[in-house]
Amino acid sequence: MSSTPLGSIDATRVPRFAGPATFARLPRADEVDHVDVAVVGVPFDSGVSYRPGARFGPAHVRASSKLLRPYNPALDVSPFAELQVADAGDIAVNPFDIAEAIAAVENAARVFAAQGTRLLTIGGDHTIALPLLRAAAAEHGPIGVVHFDAHLDTWDTYFGQPYTHGTPFRRAAEEGLLDPRRCLHVGIRGPLYSPADLTDDGVLGFQVVHSDDYQDATVASVVERMRARLGDGPVYVSVDIDVLDPAHAPGTGTPEAGGLTSRELLGTLRGLVGLDVVGADIVEVAPAYDHAELTGVAAAHTAYELLSVLARNRRDAAR
Amino acid sequence: MSSTPLGSIDATRVPRFAGPATFARLPRADEVDHVDVAVVGVPFDSGVSYRPGARFGPAHVRASSKLLRPYNPALDVSPFAELQVADAGDIAVNPFDIAEAIAAVENAARVFAAQGTRLLTIGGDHTIALPLLRAAAAEHGPIGVVHFDAHLDTWDTYFGQPYTHGTPFRRAAEEGLLDPRRCLHVGIRGPLYSPADLTDDGVLGFQVVHSDDYQDATVASVVERMRARLGDGPVYVSVDIDVLDPAHAPGTGTPEAGGLTSRELLGTLRGLVGLDVVGADIVEVAPAYDHAELTGVAAAHTAYELLSVLARNRRDAAR
Amino acid sequence: MSSTPLGSIDATRVPRFAGPATFARLPRADEVDHVDVAVVGVPFDSGVSYRPGARFGPAHVRASSKLLRPYNPALDVSPFAELQVADAGDIAVNPFDIAEAIAAVENAARVFAAQGTRLLTIGGDHTIALPLLRAAAAEHGPIGVVHFDAHLDTWDTYFGQPYTHGTPFRRAAEEGLLDPRRCLHVGIRGPLYSPADLTDDGVLGFQVVHSDDYQDATVASVVERMRARLGDGPVYVSVDIDVLDPAHAPGTGTPEAGGLTSRELLGTLRGLVGLDVVGADIVEVAPAYDHAELTGVAAAHTAYELLSVLARNRRDAAR
Amino acid sequence: MSSTPLGSIDATRVPRFAGPATFARLPRADEVDHVDVAVVGVPFDSGVSYRPGARFGPAHVRASSKLLRPYNPALDVSPFAELQVADAGDIAVNPFDIAEAIAAVENAARVFAAQGTRLLTIGGDHTIALPLLRAAAAEHGPIGVVHFDAHLDTWDTYFGQPYTHGTPFRRAAEEGLLDPRRCLHVGIRGPLYSPADLTDDGVLGFQVVHSDDYQDATVASVVERMRARLGDGPVYVSVDIDVLDPAHAPGTGTPEAGGLTSRELLGTLRGLVGLDVVGADIVEVAPAYDHAELTGVAAAHTAYELLSVLARNRRDAAR
Amino acid sequence: MSSTPLGSIDATRVPRFAGPATFARLPRADEVDHVDVAVVGVPFDSGVSYRPGARFGPAHVRASSKLLRPYNPALDVSPFAELQVADAGDIAVNPFDIAEAIAAVENAARVFAAQGTRLLTIGGDHTIALPLLRAAAAEHGPIGVVHFDAHLDTWDTYFGQPYTHGTPFRRAAEEGLLDPRRCLHVGIRGPLYSPADLTDDGVLGFQVVHSDDYQDATVASVVERMRARLGDGPVYVSVDIDVLDPAHAPGTGTPEAGGLTSRELLGTLRGLVGLDVVGADIVEVAPAYDHAELTGVAAAHTAYELLSVLARNRRDAAR
Amino acid sequence: MSSTPLGSIDATRVPRFAGPATFARLPRADEVDHVDVAVVGVPFDSGVSYRPGARFGPAHVRASSKLLRPYNPALDVSPFAELQVADAGDIAVNPFDIAEAIAAVENAARVFAAQGTRLLTIGGDHTIALPLLRAAAAEHGPIGVVHFDAHLDTWDTYFGQPYTHGTPFRRAAEEGLLDPRRCLHVGIRGPLYSPADLTDDGVLGFQVVHSDDYQDATVASVVERMRARLGDGPVYVSVDIDVLDPAHAPGTGTPEAGGLTSRELLGTLRGLVGLDVVGADIVEVAPAYDHAELTGVAAAHTAYELLSVLARNRRDAAR
Repeated sequence: MSSTPLGSIDATRVPRFAGPATFARLPRADEVDHVDVAVVGVPFDSGVSYRPGARFGPAHVRASSKLLRPYNPALDVSPFAELQVADAGDIAVNPFDIAEAIAAVENAARVFAAQGTRLLTIGGDHTIALPLLRAAAAEHGPIGVVHFDAHLDTWDTYFGQPYTHGTPFRRAAEEGLLDPRRCLHVGIRGPLYSPADLTDDGVLGFQVVHSDDYQDATVASVVERMRARLGDGPVYVSVDIDVLDPAHAPGTGTPEAGGLTSRELLGTLRGLVGLDVVGADIVEVAPAYDHAELTGVAAAHTAYELLSVLARNRRDAAR
Repeated sequence: MSSTPLGSIDATRVPRFAGPATFARLPRADEVDHVDVAVVGVPFDSGVSYRPGARFGPAHVRASSKLLRPYNPALDVSPFAELQVADAGDIAVNPFDIAEAIAAVENAARVFAAQGTRLLTIGGDHTIALPLLRAAAAEHGPIGVVHFDAHLDTWDTYFGQPYTHGTPFRRAAEEGLLDPRRCLHVGIRGPLYSPADLTDDGVLGFQVVHSDDYQDATVASVVERMRARLGDGPVYVSVDIDVLDPAHAPGTGTPEAGGLTSRELLGTLRGLVGLDVVGADIVEVAPAYDHAELTGVAAAHTAYELLSVLARNRRDAAR
Repeated sequence: MSSTPLGSIDATRVPRFAGPATFARLPRADEVDHVDVAVVGVPFDSGVSYRPGARFGPAHVRASSKLLRPYNPALDVSPFAELQVADAGDIAVNPFDIAEAIAAVENAARVFAAQGTRLLTIGGDHTIALPLLRAAAAEHGPIGVVHFDAHLDTWDTYFGQPYTHGTPFRRAAEEGLLDPRRCLHVGIRGPLYSPADLTDDGVLGFQVVHSDDYQDATVASVVERMRARLGDGPVYVSVDIDVLDPAHAPGTGTPEAGGLTSRELLGTLRGLVGLDVVGADIVEVAPAYDHAELTGVAAAHTAYELLSVLARNRRDAAR
Repeated sequence: MSSTPLGSIDATRVPRFAGPATFARLPRADEVDHVDVAVVGVPFDSGVSYRPGARFGPAHVRASSKLLRPYNPALDVSPFAELQVADAGDIAVNPFDIAEAIAAVENAARVFAAQGTRLLTIGGDHTIALPLLRAAAAEHGPIGVVHFDAHLDTWDTYFGQPYTHGTPFRRAAEEGLLDPRRCLHVGIRGPLYSPADLTDDGVLGFQVVHSDDYQDATVASVVERMRARLGDGPVYVSVDIDVLDPAHAPGTGTPEAGGLTSRELLGTLRGLVGLDVVGADIVEVAPAYDHAELTGVAAAHTAYELLSVLARNRRDAAR
Repeated sequence: MSSTPLGSIDATRVPRFAGPATFARLPRADEVDHVDVAVVGVPFDSGVSYRPGARFGPAHVRASSKLLRPYNPALDVSPFAELQVADAGDIAVNPFDIAEAIAAVENAARVFAAQGTRLLTIGGDHTIALPLLRAAAAEHGPIGVVHFDAHLDTWDTYFGQPYTHGTPFRRAAEEGLLDPRRCLHVGIRGPLYSPADLTDDGVLGFQVVHSDDYQDATVASVVERMRARLGDGPVYVSVDIDVLDPAHAPGTGTPEAGGLTSRELLGTLRGLVGLDVVGADIVEVAPAYDHAELTGVAAAHTAYELLSVLARNRRDAAR
Repeated sequence: MSSTPLGSIDATRVPRFAGPATFARLPRADEVDHVDVAVVGVPFDSGVSYRPGARFGPAHVRASSKLLRPYNPALDVSPFAELQVADAGDIAVNPFDIAEAIAAVENAARVFAAQGTRLLTIGGDHTIALPLLRAAAAEHGPIGVVHFDAHLDTWDTYFGQPYTHGTPFRRAAEEGLLDPRRCLHVGIRGPLYSPADLTDDGVLGFQVVHSDDYQDATVASVVERMRARLGDGPVYVSVDIDVLDPAHAPGTGTPEAGGLTSRELLGTLRGLVGLDVVGADIVEVAPAYDHAELTGVAAAHTAYELLSVLARNRRDAAR
């Protein structure tokens, strides 16, 4: 770790449309001695209730990340220089057995944790947040969660199936993985099944920032609410790309009109600097519905801001 | 009407990608005894001046409405429980004879009115607003109109044809269908033929809220202007989907840059609660230009907010 | 049954882009007394190994079938006049439990059989052929199968899962549903896992007509081989749309270059006249990968030829 | 005319993606003294019964024609050197009045004829064949027609409208424009309304080469049948792009599976050399349904072969 | 110049989908005696570093400009009546030699300048801004530049190549073409190579308005900053369409999430009224990545606002 | 080499939509000791004359190759078991300097040759065939070439540039790289600049099999002509994907109607078994114009057949 991290392939030597297919053309995890943060894919979408296809999400986000450059002026940090970020490839899971898949993701996440590696996971559908939260809670105890999404994802079951992309946060709350004083959703909008959806959700420990709350307020005010809720403990960040308006993220499985702009999302994510972010995921990118990598680019930038937050935190802590 | 309305197919029993092709998977009109609000399609686009294709609009909006759930938290109402909403299918009209088509739509609308059924019409092009306004005025007298659109649609003729998608509100005003003190356009932008377009439009009774008025103001302030203009009488709501920016609604016939976001539109529509909305249409969805049901989903959510306003009004009136 | 069958909506009264969303704008099954042949959807794709999305296949094929007219000159028959064909909607199945879904399809198929209704099933993925063959064999005993596909679909398991879209015909053979002297694949091409794939397949009772066999031979000669193999007993026809070249059917899950043209497929299907076709399916239409309903139209025409074969057989038998 | 024709812009001086938007980057009609053959657009689609959009056909075919080079090796002719071909722009017609539009096209066609200019017309929907045939027959008397199409286009009326894209050849026959001994359709396939469609069609003077006739026969044999039917008199060539399979021409309004390849079409057109071709049209290109100019390129090559036939005939006659 | 300018083709005589392929269906430059402002295309993209395709930009923006009408209510001006605007076609340049292409563009621009014609150039990639600035500075001396872009475009070299789409403003500054007190970028966002990118950029004379600056501020406040910076001297406006968010402009070569809406861009451009705008370009429209002319329409409206600014300035000056 | 080759990732352990982004999920070249055949990308398209974008070809063909399985029944060979095939990544070349790029490709190819590795190169545009032929001829002396393409690619210069995608085979002939008795084009069609194009081409040593030659003949007869021409010496195979009809390969830069089907191409390639194939390329895949990986899949299968030919030759030689 005392060595200088290995960053992206130099774009003045290898054109951006050439070279390795890793996230941001970063090194593979097996090419470096130690990985501070691994970008890892989970190509799994057997938990979706409407449009499938997020199984192709990891490859698509990687392909859409080739334009990312090393320095983030918005946070004044060079994430790939402050941290050794590497692409750890995909966690291969069984598409025909949700339970087995969840277990495989949890196991893989625990192995990374044991190596001192934090995870930025690219889904796949939102089902995978549960095993990732299990691994995070195993390491850190009950954690705060900021969940960017159009949907609450705290429903109970669907067709009798308790583990789907609409239920991970209820399961996580039931399993005691979440700190009920430090959870919130951001970007919620659209119809629900009943008023009980919201009541139940509050009981599980979530506050709600609606998409409409961005309409006439500033991003700074949302950030303030978010930070107040998340407090000082460990924080897990889960970004369902459908938090963005379908105009900004058509390539997703359950689109809802009235969402965030990518500028609002990126601005809000930057507000996480200084919080103890212990892991993150970006899920529900369904490339078959994308156009011109619109959704993929938004997801890649989302990942980049999250990596920048981690890097700023590392640098600030070192001072 | 004393019976409980029949709502959408239960999504925990029939997956959303299965089941009937009705709007929001609601019952067909022939499956229920009484219909409070009928969602009806008018697959007609012979009045368009640029890109045709809105004839496929009704089928596309229905297909894009499968994700709508029963409870609208933004207005705290379950529209399909408060009202019997049903899909009345399409009004089949002659694609080769605009006059005959207009007459057929008017006749059909009058039949619905005679049955005590209000209409939420899915176009089709904007030509169909005229016969719908005729039927509405026949029932309610001259009515207020809030017209969401990039364009004024009060032009006079086009190629000598007085009945096109650019002229319905001029014809309606000439026919005395409109209350000239209670009409406004929302979302207007882009080039016109001449300054007279605006002058003429004002003479017909319309005020204008420009798309730019949303830029530095709040949705609440637009709503205030809208409500002040519409007042207490009967109100007809006409939504040309091109009121949205092409980023939010590419699937339309005469796109203009600089439009509303879907969040702005939905927020404004919610401001209609308490007004006497007697009918509504959503027009100009041209699926051949849509992508990933982006436009269709925006239209379906627009319909859902309008139905929610009607349901809230019903519930509030009952108290 | 003595009554005249109810056919498609009259296109001179209701334009083809309007009207009901049923297959070929035929009546719903609940609108007629008796159904000779039901077109039924199975929106299920949890058995796919690569691109998902066939869950949207039934709706897409219905939407693509609106141009079908009543008279088939190639077979000189009006299928909707000779037979009461009706759209029986979708068999709703659990997307999260393959075994339960298979059982549900089998049960539904048996109910149709008990009513004397033959099935033309629109998938969904190829997993559903197994329960359909179970129901067919329960009625007719071991049956001959003509299977149009790029792939053998007689693999054993995938990720330990015995019931997937790559395995239905092996399972069917193991369960004794097939007459091993009367089965063949048509259109096979592309790489396999090993030579054993072909050997195993032959042991199960299948002969193979390769896509290349169409290259320098006539359709008539392929038909001759097919008829010789299928003989006189009951025949089930299973059409994976990927039997077509990706140029003709881009909207599918596991495309293989070098496939059939739609003209070759339709010509071959007409060669089934006179054989005892007891059921059929068309599977693996994945609309998210389709363009301009190219694949949907090919599937709709495939369905139409199969219905025409059934109608010709009925008429010829009545003579 | 003694002067050397002005050809396409030189591609070694102006790259093919630059320069004028004329067909094949040829001169505009107003840039040359005399025009032997005018390529003219008729952006009109008010006669369509299903997918509209052919109004954008002329612009699309022009954009797709930029790769055409000067020499046609298949016919050993340089069409733009043998003939002065020029782009005469669009005949602007009223989209709201079919009768007026038909009259306008006829008038324009007669003006060209009076100037000794033959027409290659780019549609637009098939309605426009009628006025073009009127002008041709006015000059040449009843003419032979070879009509490439999936559909007969000899239906009677549609929604009471006698002039639509499905009726031009019946109207033409009724008006005595056709030589009933010298007409044929090529490429016919797919369902009809009734057996009478074919009987009526034969009475009007048409023979039929089915798409299936290409399956097991040679292009040369089709050409032979075509030439035998067309004989020595004046011939009009009408190409509905849907004669091609949807795989080759997705961008059209009423696609039918089982069609011709572009290679078959081009080969057949070359068989017209030596016949007295007096005019031609290419219709039903609907760009909103096209992809990567697939349909546009096929239409542009179709136009090029027709121009080459005219040029060869000119050269051969001069010898 | 005393004559009334010739404007767009009358849309009530020639439908918008018909007629000439010029920008806004304006006259060609060779059809009028004098041109105040020429819209000229530069189909060149050999300077791009990621997605090519802007060579097709001029044709695409022209095709997307057909809906522009004569009167701009936002600026109360009819640009085509106040100024003779004409389409001067494309400047054909060598795609294989960047230096030769730059020289050709400069030469062409100087010819226009010598004729008293101002240029609104449609790219093409951003490389072309350099020769355009050379010609502008040759006429006006060092000029102020307002540069709308996601990127700074003041990088030094790329693969040793000093003239690319990422370097025009550095070259321009080095060549003394810019007034270092009167330059700014608007819309900047996303990752950079290093902090030095910003430092270098400032040294060259640029201030920066970030995309985020629009988030919580008004357009009016951005306009104020822009006008303060540009001052009274000659101003060149360069709009890289990627200043828009990919949701608003997917059809471009180096998309960055978090960009401007088209409403923000158009509003800001209107703020240029009264400044001495001597030339402008709109670059980096890559149609192969566009959808439904979304990007093309945004570019066409951008051009229209710029032309309106020039017209207002002319009219105001005449008073 | 005595060791068993390492093949593709096992699809029963890692789903096909997961895992490495290498061609056919094969090992990277750095993961194995020796490479018999390297699949290598050349992301370069600066030599194209019309639609650019082939720079993204290598990544696209790799992504489209995930469905390839280990055993090729058509040639009865398992190419990845007979040969160590590995993905050698991309040869990174300068997009702004064609000469430098050509030199870089040649150098890289010579390094592979020195290691005893044969190349299957994925372009990139056809410019790259020249340096690949240089390296091949350096090793083998003048070689025979079978060139699958719609175009001759023996033009001289374009805009004064001698090295473009339309000129590689003329340059190669001039440099003495080709055996003029053993070269042929297959699939040629469409317009040329002049008759001299063909004459010149013949002088350079090429025979021509036209696309039309497939129309009424068998693939076997084309194979016979090809084998007769290529004879016993070393053979280089160059496949421009536009040899396929645009229906089969829309994603390319200079589409020509009337092309081969993928079945014809694959069948012809199999006819190379037994010839001394020393290298091959597949070029001109431009993903921005592709749909549903149609072109990518065709290219991947093309690569697979070529690898199978090499593997069969190896196995047959060993016997």
